[in-house]
Amino acid sequence: MNFRINESIEILERTPHTLGAFLTGLSNGWLHCNEGQGTWNADEVIGHLIDAEKTNWVPRIKTILDQGEDTSFPPFDRFAHLNQSEEKTVDQKLEEFKTLRAENISLIQRLIVSEQQFEWIGNHPAFGEVKLRELLSTWVVHDFTHISQIVRVMAERYRTDVGPWQEYLGILNRSK
Amino acid sequence: MNFRINESIEILERTPHTLGAFLTGLSNGWLHCNEGQGTWNADEVIGHLIDAEKTNWVPRIKTILDQGEDTSFPPFDRFAHLNQSEEKTVDQKLEEFKTLRAENISLIQRLIVSEQQFEWIGNHPAFGEVKLRELLSTWVVHDFTHISQIVRVMAERYRTDVGPWQEYLGILNRSK
Repeated sequence: MNFRINESIEILERTPHTLGAFLTGLSNGWLHCNEGQGTWNADEVIGHLIDAEKTNWVPRIKTILDQGEDTSFPPFDRFAHLNQSEEKTVDQKLEEFKTLRAENISLIQRLIVSEQQFEWIGNHPAFGEVKLRELLSTWVVHDFTHISQIVRVMAERYRTDVGPWQEYLGILNRSK
Repeated sequence: MNFRINESIEILERTPHTLGAFLTGLSNGWLHCNEGQGTWNADEVIGHLIDAEKTNWVPRIKTILDQGEDTSFPPFDRFAHLNQSEEKTVDQKLEEFKTLRAENISLIQRLIVSEQQFEWIGNHPAFGEVKLRELLSTWVVHDFTHISQIVRVMAERYRTDVGPWQEYLGILNRSK
């Protein structure tokens, strides 16, 4: 096991700043390219990260920490951000993500007061019993997954532009 | 063709700041994990990016722009950073990368004065004729490749920690 709460928080607190440095002020060509029909662009990925801050991680963490009779997780809609009517710019979304993430980190730092809590259990709709430390590790790797996704989607835009170098560039040569 | 010089520079100028936001001050556990023997950790990837700033991109760009008789690229050692004796911290390397990248962007902005130059040709040791615009596009996608690599290497560290979520996390389910 590599999980340590302090190291996990190091990543969680950096992600919005990493994405801010990467995406703030970027051209629409980069922000709105995707990998084809039904795939997400960078803007939509940030929308998904915001939804997850609001309705996934903290509600699930609280469900485990409350330790009531029902430890089933509340539902999370992975596609909710695609159906929102309010239009925000990517820069506004990045600021919202920063604020929400900082609040959520601060909240879990208040709620988790003992190492023993990491072994407490919740009920995942598909997997059954999962531990708090698995959920927290997943939050971290979920950040990695979506940073990686944004970078991959943007690289795809230059697939033919790199000419013969395509075969040397790892990011253009992996399965989706 | 999606290549545009201004959009390429947007990425090139952001990469050191993105990696700075992601890696500055991070624990050794994250900075020095890798994917097994012979693979690079985040620290080594930054070393490689610094080498490429010094001995790959600009020397190759200059070779094309000089348009002399010999348009063969000077050699580039992808593994040079593994044999350096001077020991710098990752934070120092990130600062060095920022400085070198800013200087190199400034240099190419001075050297490239006409759209026609993007079609000029150099001789790649393996591929033969390549165009300046292909080299510049490759510089951008090379950044994407290595950001993606760092994120993937770090995600790998939590592969078992995420428990059953492993199957949902794209970054843990793609070929290397």
